[in-house]
Amino acid sequence: MSRFFSSKYDALEPYVPGEQPRDMEYIKLNTNESPFPPSPLAVAGAAEEAKKLQLYSDPQCRDLVAAAAEVLGVAEDEIVFTNGSDDILNFAFMAFCDKEHPAAFANITYGFYPVFAQLNGVPYEEIPLRPDFTIDPEDYMGIGKTIFIANPNAPTAIAMSVSDIEKIVKSNPDNVVLVDEAYVDFGAESCLPLIRKYDNLLVTRTFSKSRSLAGARLGFGVACPDIIRDLNTIRYSTNPYNINRMTMAAGIGALRDTAYTKMICDTVAENRAFAAAELKKLGFVMTDSVTNFFFASHPLISGEEFYKKLRARGILVRHFSRPEIADYNRITVGSRAEMEALIAAAKDILEEVK
Amino acid sequence: MSRFFSSKYDALEPYVPGEQPRDMEYIKLNTNESPFPPSPLAVAGAAEEAKKLQLYSDPQCRDLVAAAAEVLGVAEDEIVFTNGSDDILNFAFMAFCDKEHPAAFANITYGFYPVFAQLNGVPYEEIPLRPDFTIDPEDYMGIGKTIFIANPNAPTAIAMSVSDIEKIVKSNPDNVVLVDEAYVDFGAESCLPLIRKYDNLLVTRTFSKSRSLAGARLGFGVACPDIIRDLNTIRYSTNPYNINRMTMAAGIGALRDTAYTKMICDTVAENRAFAAAELKKLGFVMTDSVTNFFFASHPLISGEEFYKKLRARGILVRHFSRPEIADYNRITVGSRAEMEALIAAAKDILEEVK
Repeated sequence: MSRFFSSKYDALEPYVPGEQPRDMEYIKLNTNESPFPPSPLAVAGAAEEAKKLQLYSDPQCRDLVAAAAEVLGVAEDEIVFTNGSDDILNFAFMAFCDKEHPAAFANITYGFYPVFAQLNGVPYEEIPLRPDFTIDPEDYMGIGKTIFIANPNAPTAIAMSVSDIEKIVKSNPDNVVLVDEAYVDFGAESCLPLIRKYDNLLVTRTFSKSRSLAGARLGFGVACPDIIRDLNTIRYSTNPYNINRMTMAAGIGALRDTAYTKMICDTVAENRAFAAAELKKLGFVMTDSVTNFFFASHPLISGEEFYKKLRARGILVRHFSRPEIADYNRITVGSRAEMEALIAAAKDILEEVK
Repeated sequence: MSRFFSSKYDALEPYVPGEQPRDMEYIKLNTNESPFPPSPLAVAGAAEEAKKLQLYSDPQCRDLVAAAAEVLGVAEDEIVFTNGSDDILNFAFMAFCDKEHPAAFANITYGFYPVFAQLNGVPYEEIPLRPDFTIDPEDYMGIGKTIFIANPNAPTAIAMSVSDIEKIVKSNPDNVVLVDEAYVDFGAESCLPLIRKYDNLLVTRTFSKSRSLAGARLGFGVACPDIIRDLNTIRYSTNPYNINRMTMAAGIGALRDTAYTKMICDTVAENRAFAAAELKKLGFVMTDSVTNFFFASHPLISGEEFYKKLRARGILVRHFSRPEIADYNRITVGSRAEMEALIAAAKDILEEVK
């Protein structure tokens, strides 16, 4: 830290992204990336835009917004795009939280929520999950805080029903409820149809998972026009050109190639069913994943040890040291071949520790 | 505004980017873009990366940092990359300004500085320029504030000498002095060689101008490792993957193609000399530009009227309504053909109003 760093960040603990080691080629099951390259339409669109990079990108993202509105069936003034969904999550903490409007979210959820709260000097409450890692909707009824719900939740891979979320939204009419649907396309219900019913609901999504564009950085939010306007006020006060030309073009290509997105989601669901069955045969304890990852532990080996032994075998998974979930690992559902390699490595490790 | 928007932004006036109308094809001299496409190395690098977008970008930007360190002759821990230089400017306001460390900058300078100050709740002082639009270094001596200097300054197109900036840096040893060198490659001296001498100096740059990558969004800061570490703490707490894979690859290509960057800068200097001479012949009053734009007024026509009449003729320039500079327009130095079109239009307009 330099002697100039503002003391307001004394308690700030930056987010730690999944590791990206370069000492060898790993099977990467640690950052929930898609096993498929992006849609050819996305690749071609981005490559074409690369020739025009001397020109600024459109700060209003008009073409991208129009394409998304059409595909999602919402109005153009109900959408805002950002540089990855981290950007919109941060904007929401900025716009809708302050000392008088503290944040609330599960104690086990996306690790960036507490970082955004700390960064913005926002008080926050971490609400414990039930012992089975599900969220108890009753804990969120009428709490009068700005609520962040990852649905499905990560790293637990479990979704709440839309009717439960609706109750939460309804019971906190004077606070924004953000539903982070980063993983929704892999098998959960979306809250998108509720945005016209509740002016306090903000649904966020990412192109990183089901649209194979993690490396392009594209996320968005859908809400009533007033909420979108506020988020744009923040966007125009931080980085109006936050989305580059290539990413916009890739996003438009990916949006239009709905068949390709469906193929990705269907394949992930197949590989998930295959790998879940195999891992359960080996004695793994797992939540019922509706996402592109597993949340898994095994009675014979600690989470950290399993993570390390997989790593030594060239397979990266994500281990979190937080005590409540230290027995578990978050394991991305990759290609069939990657799942077979995972299962083979797991067998080998379990033989070793037996 | 929604009823949920935090009252801390009551005084916030978002930045207004240069217009991007779509009603017809304009000659765009309003956002200081390069008249050249990016280096072929940048285009090819970006297009190649587009095929791998399913994978997250490297949050440490290792390859890009290594390439920049080599080209700029600094160490890898002395550089941080961001999503455009707006990102690093905002990070600097976040990291190095607060109620106890107010900001100071010229009253006529990059219009985003006051927005960043407002956004972050930072008190700020706007220090008037001299009547000839130059900065008086004496105004900044020992003021004990976090200082932001665009050098060359925009929209005035005038640079301070490095020795004057060094005096400012030296006389404010307990505050960060940020020197925003967005336009430095077009003919001003850089403060980069001073970063090892002063631990309170932060130099920022962009790839938007001399490297023809405005649409890719890439900026960076160079400073002592402690300052860089603080900026990375902010970066890892807002958006660790803020730079996408394609932009990183484009940046590496552009950095390596030093001959191409030199060609851009040399051509802009030639076109600038040509157009400046012609505009002066027509009676325009202009600062001596060391940038890729002019700051010009004319005794026969108001700044706003000239802007409007150019626009009606298909040429966009940037007019600022702030009274001190309302007589002026900021006009990008484009291609030779664009400069000829500008001069022809100016002649035509002056005939009309004579």
